Amino acid sequence: MSHTQSLVPEPTPWGVVSVVGVGLIGGSLAAGLRRRGLAREVVGVGRDASRLEAAVERGLIDTATSDLAAAATRSDLLVFCTPVDRIAAGIAAAAPHCRPGTLLTDAGSVKHSICRAVAEVLPRGVEFLGGHPMAGGESQGYLAADPDLFVGRRCVLTDCGLASQPTQARLAALWRGLGARVVLLSPQEHDRLAAIGSHVPHVVAAILAGTLPQEAFPLAASGFRDTTRIAAGDPGLWTAILQANREQVLGELDRFADSLREWRGRLAVDDADGVGQLLARGQARRAEWLREFAATTEEHQEQE
Amino acid sequence: MSHTQSLVPEPTPWGVVSVVGVGLIGGSLAAGLRRRGLAREVVGVGRDASRLEAAVERGLIDTATSDLAAAATRSDLLVFCTPVDRIAAGIAAAAPHCRPGTLLTDAGSVKHSICRAVAEVLPRGVEFLGGHPMAGGESQGYLAADPDLFVGRRCVLTDCGLASQPTQARLAALWRGLGARVVLLSPQEHDRLAAIGSHVPHVVAAILAGTLPQEAFPLAASGFRDTTRIAAGDPGLWTAILQANREQVLGELDRFADSLREWRGRLAVDDADGVGQLLARGQARRAEWLREFAATTEEHQEQE
Repeated sequence: MSHTQSLVPEPTPWGVVSVVGVGLIGGSLAAGLRRRGLAREVVGVGRDASRLEAAVERGLIDTATSDLAAAATRSDLLVFCTPVDRIAAGIAAAAPHCRPGTLLTDAGSVKHSICRAVAEVLPRGVEFLGGHPMAGGESQGYLAADPDLFVGRRCVLTDCGLASQPTQARLAALWRGLGARVVLLSPQEHDRLAAIGSHVPHVVAAILAGTLPQEAFPLAASGFRDTTRIAAGDPGLWTAILQANREQVLGELDRFADSLREWRGRLAVDDADGVGQLLARGQARRAEWLREFAATTEEHQEQE
Repeated sequence: MSHTQSLVPEPTPWGVVSVVGVGLIGGSLAAGLRRRGLAREVVGVGRDASRLEAAVERGLIDTATSDLAAAATRSDLLVFCTPVDRIAAGIAAAAPHCRPGTLLTDAGSVKHSICRAVAEVLPRGVEFLGGHPMAGGESQGYLAADPDLFVGRRCVLTDCGLASQPTQARLAALWRGLGARVVLLSPQEHDRLAAIGSHVPHVVAAILAGTLPQEAFPLAASGFRDTTRIAAGDPGLWTAILQANREQVLGELDRFADSLREWRGRLAVDDADGVGQLLARGQARRAEWLREFAATTEEHQEQE
């Protein structure tokens, strides 16, 4: 714990924090807040009473309720960790019940469409700042919740003009208190970069997986397994993500198609040097990215 | 060893087998032949004398030589395990020195172009049958060689009319003796399926990795890492593979581009059902393939 505490530069603790949607992200956030004393009370809000009760028993949350309006009334901070297509509606339902000074945020993987929707429903005096912690992975659900899930990971905060500077600093301090590295981006920039780093790779993996004919099964091995791993993701969840980030994904799919044409052109004229350069560029760029990514992962492992 | 032996239905053992290129595949093949008594003598052929000497000391091969012609003269079987762009030239160099009745084969991941080249140089009475064991993975080089590398794995044999039926059966028995599951395909069909299951995924991974802008580094996480893992492969090796399978790769890149257009079209008109169906198809097809692939992997693990 001493190592964990050294990461926490005495952040201002919050009063009542409601975590809406107690799955892997929400459960980990709640557990992290409790473990580190970053909130006086952590309320879990959800629709499944028995699951919430189990989350209380596991010590992830202090109290549980399925009444979002009631939770909103007494909360200083609400964090929406539901699937991305339910975040804006949840915020719209909660906001009218919030006291002035309450901050709403989320953990959705798409930001611009949520910001736009929230801007239309936010009462005067209530603030909103978008959030996207870059954590998750294969495991899902509150059973995999881990108070150290965010240690060393990036958390993107997206300002859409609905939160004051002090509020932004306070939310950044909360995520830093959980061990995350905070990055500030505009919602549009976040969504463009998420399309490149996550959503287009998902589409590409889905194409590779979905078009593998049965007779090619014997010729696909560990490379195919890894390249298509994310295609195992929940189709409903990913339909919502791609819809919510439709414009940026379309733009980046076009950019990908341009690269594909460049590749095809070089291979078609048997330009070995050109193909080799494209391969070398991919190898080098990935190594560069991986050094950065692995550094955050290692820090997380040292922490555990 | 009793389990291993139960997989070997008393195959006719070979006399002198030369393994040309003692890396991961060649070293594993050599070690597997020795361990299972499938050859009277295993000769390692390569250019690096000190590495070959080390392979003898590790017990992978019985003897070592850098003289391919001399090895060819006294071998009953030669297996070319060099990089794919050196196989045809190696066979051309060895074939004139082979006695009638000698069989040449390889472990290259592209088959049609090798078959075509070999057909022009093969002396009367010498036979050739293409081979492609589906094994390898991240580790490279003879230090990672494993006599059980092929257990449970597929090995594709490709008939291009240069080997008799009894010879084909004999080579199939050798691979089955090493624990592999033998699949017979035409060279063209092999190459088309390899383009789908391996070469196009490699191009796609290289594009995703090579076009990730630095500002998107924070938005790429474990999904990106896995989707692009194969882009870390050696550019020289992969240039050779893509060149050797150029026509099939071009055709399958076009098929991929068609799927990309279909995806783009559905997303552009916000067809949530259509996008969901494409995602569900990818998820289901991958699960179907993975069940088959995991079964071979598990058998390998049980074996160890």
